[in-house]
Amino acid sequence: MELKDAIQQKIDNLNKPKGSLGRLEELAMQVCLIQQTLIPALKHPCHLLLGGDHGIEREGVSVSPREVTWQQMINFTHGGGGCNMFCRQHGFDLRIVDVGVDYDLSGVAGIVNRKIARGTQNFLHEPAMTEAQYNEALNVGAQLVDDCVAEGCNVICIGEMGIGNTSPSSIWMHLYGNIPLEDCIGAGSGLNSAGVQHKYKVLRQAVDNYLALPAPQPSPLRYFGGFEMITAIGAMLRAAEQHLVILVDGFIMTACALGAVQLNAEVKKNMIFTHCGDECGHRRMLDLLGARPLLNLGLRLGEGTGALCAYPLIDSAVRMMNEMNNFDDAKITKYF
Amino acid sequence: MELKDAIQQKIDNLNKPKGSLGRLEELAMQVCLIQQTLIPALKHPCHLLLGGDHGIEREGVSVSPREVTWQQMINFTHGGGGCNMFCRQHGFDLRIVDVGVDYDLSGVAGIVNRKIARGTQNFLHEPAMTEAQYNEALNVGAQLVDDCVAEGCNVICIGEMGIGNTSPSSIWMHLYGNIPLEDCIGAGSGLNSAGVQHKYKVLRQAVDNYLALPAPQPSPLRYFGGFEMITAIGAMLRAAEQHLVILVDGFIMTACALGAVQLNAEVKKNMIFTHCGDECGHRRMLDLLGARPLLNLGLRLGEGTGALCAYPLIDSAVRMMNEMNNFDDAKITKYF
Repeated sequence: MELKDAIQQKIDNLNKPKGSLGRLEELAMQVCLIQQTLIPALKHPCHLLLGGDHGIEREGVSVSPREVTWQQMINFTHGGGGCNMFCRQHGFDLRIVDVGVDYDLSGVAGIVNRKIARGTQNFLHEPAMTEAQYNEALNVGAQLVDDCVAEGCNVICIGEMGIGNTSPSSIWMHLYGNIPLEDCIGAGSGLNSAGVQHKYKVLRQAVDNYLALPAPQPSPLRYFGGFEMITAIGAMLRAAEQHLVILVDGFIMTACALGAVQLNAEVKKNMIFTHCGDECGHRRMLDLLGARPLLNLGLRLGEGTGALCAYPLIDSAVRMMNEMNNFDDAKITKYF
Repeated sequence: MELKDAIQQKIDNLNKPKGSLGRLEELAMQVCLIQQTLIPALKHPCHLLLGGDHGIEREGVSVSPREVTWQQMINFTHGGGGCNMFCRQHGFDLRIVDVGVDYDLSGVAGIVNRKIARGTQNFLHEPAMTEAQYNEALNVGAQLVDDCVAEGCNVICIGEMGIGNTSPSSIWMHLYGNIPLEDCIGAGSGLNSAGVQHKYKVLRQAVDNYLALPAPQPSPLRYFGGFEMITAIGAMLRAAEQHLVILVDGFIMTACALGAVQLNAEVKKNMIFTHCGDECGHRRMLDLLGARPLLNLGLRLGEGTGALCAYPLIDSAVRMMNEMNNFDDAKITKYF
C-alpha cells in the first residue's frame, strides 16, 4: 500500500466520524507526507526573525520610517515584541537575524549578524541587490535552516521585520500572478488613500522601468526583493530539501512563498499557510498558490505572528495521529 | 477614566501598529472586561464534558446508534478521545460528567455521576423532561462550575457527547431564531439526503405537536432539550455570574448559548465563540448571536474540540496584555 493510502486509512479508523476533524485531518496528512511516516512528530520548532531595510522606503511608500526596523530588532532582544511572546507561548527557539538592516547591530547581544548590506538599493532606479548579494542571501537562508536542523529542528517558521517590504511583495504578486498592480497594493501598515495612490505611482514607475530593461533582465526576486525576503526564500528552499514543515505567515511571507515556488515548485508540499491578513490582495495571492490559510484573524503585525499563532493547530493534528485511539482499541461501534 | 477606555488605551500603546493584532485585540478587550482588569490572567482552565441520551434518537434521526454515547463516555476515561488529547495539549482539567446517559456508568472510574435520568423522553410525543428534571439539570451545571471555581478556575469550556443532540439544537434555532426549520437541519454526523428528509419530517411533526399544546406551554428548552444541553446552559449562566470566560464550541454548544441568552442576555458578554462548523445553519445561529467565531476548520466531532483548539488564541491575547512592551518602555518610534 502506498504511504498516502496508509495514512488515510489510519486517519479514517481513528475514533471519530470520518472527516469530522476537518482541516486537522488534512494537516495530519500533509505532515505525515512531509515526514514520510504514520507517526509524525514536531521537534524543536524554530522561528527565524529576519530583518532588513529597503531602498524603496526613501520614496515615501511607508508611513513608518526605516528607523523602526533597527529599533524593533533591538526590542526583540529584550523579549517584548509580538514574535517574542508567541515564541515563548509555543516553545519556539527564536533566532533574530540581521541580514540587511540599515544600522550597525553587530554589537547587540541576541542578534545573529548575517548582514549582507545596510539595506537594499532603491529599485525605482536600480536593482535592489547585485547577483552576488542575491546568492549570498539565499545561502544565508539555507545556512540558518541547516543550523536549526543541526539542533534537531523539523518545523520552521519565518518572520520578517523590514519597513517597506509590502512594496516588493506587491510587485512580485503583480509580476508572478498576473494580477493588476493596483489590486496588489493595500494600505500596508496604515497608509491613507492618498498614500496608497502615491505608493501605486512609485511602484508602477519602478515596474515600468524594470520591464523596459534590455534582456536579460535580472529576476524580479533580485531586482525588487529585500534581503530578509530573499533570505526567507533561501530558507524555504532548504527547509523543503531537509523535509521540514514550513509555517508560512501573512502577506510578506506569502509573497516569499510565491517567490520560492518560482525557483522550485516542490517546496509548496512542505508549506502550511497559516493566516490570511487584511492586506489587500493577500487572499488572491493565496489563491494563486492554491492555499487555504488556517486562520483569518485580521493580523497585520508581521514578525511571523500569524504563523506562530497557528502552530497549536498543527500540533493538534500531530497529536491526533499519535494520541487518538481507533475503533479497534476503543471497542466502540463505528459511528458517523 | 472608564475601565474600557483604559483597556483600549493600553492596547493602543502596545509596541505595534494600532489594531495590527486584529481579533487578538478584541479578545484581550473582552477578557479584560470580564475580569475587570488591565492585567488579565487565565487560571486552571476546565473542560466539562457532559454526556446524555435523547429520546428522539428512537425516531431514527441519527445515523449513529445511542450506544455510542456510553461507549464514548467510557472511552474518554481512557484518554484516547478527541477532547482528551486537546485537553492535555492545552492544560485543561477534564471532567467527564454523566448527566443523562442511557447506561449505568456509576461504577466507572473517571466519570462524575450526576445522572438525572437514563436519557430524555421522546419529544415527538411528550416533553423531553419534567420541570423538576429541567431545574435539576440547571443546578447540576451551576454546581459543576462552582466546583471548578473552587479549584481556582476562571475559564471554562463545555463539550457534549449525546447521540441525537443536533435535533433539539435545530429546533431551538428554529424557534428562537425564527429561521425556517428546513434551514436548521443539516446532516448532523453523516446523514444522507433521505436521512435529512426523514429528520425534517420528524422534527416538523414534533414542533407542530408542541405548538398545538394548550397554554402555558413548557419552554422549548425543557420540551426539546437534552440533559447535557440544559446542564450546559446552567453551567453557562453560573459561569457568567462567577465572571468566568466561557468558550463556546460548535453547533450544539452554540444552540445552548442561544438558550442561555434567552434566560439571561448578559451571559453573552462572557462568551467567546470559537468555531463555525459545517453543520448547516451554524453560521446563521452565530449571526443571531452577533458572534464571529475564531476558527473555521470544518470540525464536527463535538466534545468541545473546536473550543479547545481555539484556546491558545485567547492565551495569546492575554499574553499580549501582559508581556508585550509599549512604545514608552521600548523606546521605539511609534509606527503604523
